[in-house]
Amino acid sequence: MTFWKFFFNSTNINQIREENKNKKTKLLVKGLETNNIYLSTCKKINLEELEILCDAVGWVRRPLKKVKYALENSFLAISLFYKYGNDQRLIGFARVTSDGSFNATIWDVVIHPDFQGNGLGTLLMKQIIKELRTHDISTITLFADPDVLKFYKDIGFVIDPDGVKGMFWYPT
Amino acid sequence: MTFWKFFFNSTNINQIREENKNKKTKLLVKGLETNNIYLSTCKKINLEELEILCDAVGWVRRPLKKVKYALENSFLAISLFYKYGNDQRLIGFARVTSDGSFNATIWDVVIHPDFQGNGLGTLLMKQIIKELRTHDISTITLFADPDVLKFYKDIGFVIDPDGVKGMFWYPT
Repeated sequence: MTFWKFFFNSTNINQIREENKNKKTKLLVKGLETNNIYLSTCKKINLEELEILCDAVGWVRRPLKKVKYALENSFLAISLFYKYGNDQRLIGFARVTSDGSFNATIWDVVIHPDFQGNGLGTLLMKQIIKELRTHDISTITLFADPDVLKFYKDIGFVIDPDGVKGMFWYPT
Repeated sequence: MTFWKFFFNSTNINQIREENKNKKTKLLVKGLETNNIYLSTCKKINLEELEILCDAVGWVRRPLKKVKYALENSFLAISLFYKYGNDQRLIGFARVTSDGSFNATIWDVVIHPDFQGNGLGTLLMKQIIKELRTHDISTITLFADPDVLKFYKDIGFVIDPDGVKGMFWYPT
């Protein structure tokens, strides 16, 4: 498993500490001993943990077998962990489909509500972009709900460049 | 190599014949003996042929090494051939990135200009949808230039459903 530790500046660390103090009862994680945030690109993700995370943001549950297969066939999956003592909790996630060469599409971006507002989503996205750029992938795409357009714009994503439109086909 | 032969109705066959008569000098294929159209999902594509096809629609050339890698890492690649005598010519192409489970994105859809207007693009797209549906993939997406929005709409693609927007990130 590949881990990077984010070396937040002290402001961010303090923000997280403050967040934890204020939301202690709301936190999934109790008895916090450390406040380290880790990212992992390991695709062997605990599916139940991922399900709990997705439940927390109100996503519809999906068959675990299909989720497992989707993860295996994703070009990149990034998990964000909050480490406390000798344990850790999955608090963020995103994955990417790609041809590994030109194009990539980011799916299923999620940060646990108790940890939102600390810049973790931006860090997750920037790490994805960094990873994809190491493969010289230059067209990084996603499909954004209306309420997160600003979030992605602030990271540098552009809506409908040159009139190019995102289109969907669903089974009828 | 997996081949399907399209059993066009006679109108379509005649359209193609008429097209060939009228545009004989413009055709890549000379000395036509048959007018069979074949589809293949084999990813071992002749890259030079693909390059010639992409040149024909004015696409910027891309490094062949990267194209080869992209094809290998595409979930699906579909080629459309015009078969004449014992030879065949690549006249259409599209490829798909996907997690093989939930989401797919279609890229690089191209029909040679000499063969456009015969419904081959629609056939190509419908075959892609059919293939993806066999994998129970239900979110089929693409990014469409303004001049092909109607083409995709007619196939059943929807622009910005529920306000979901396509977004792009490019290196600066």
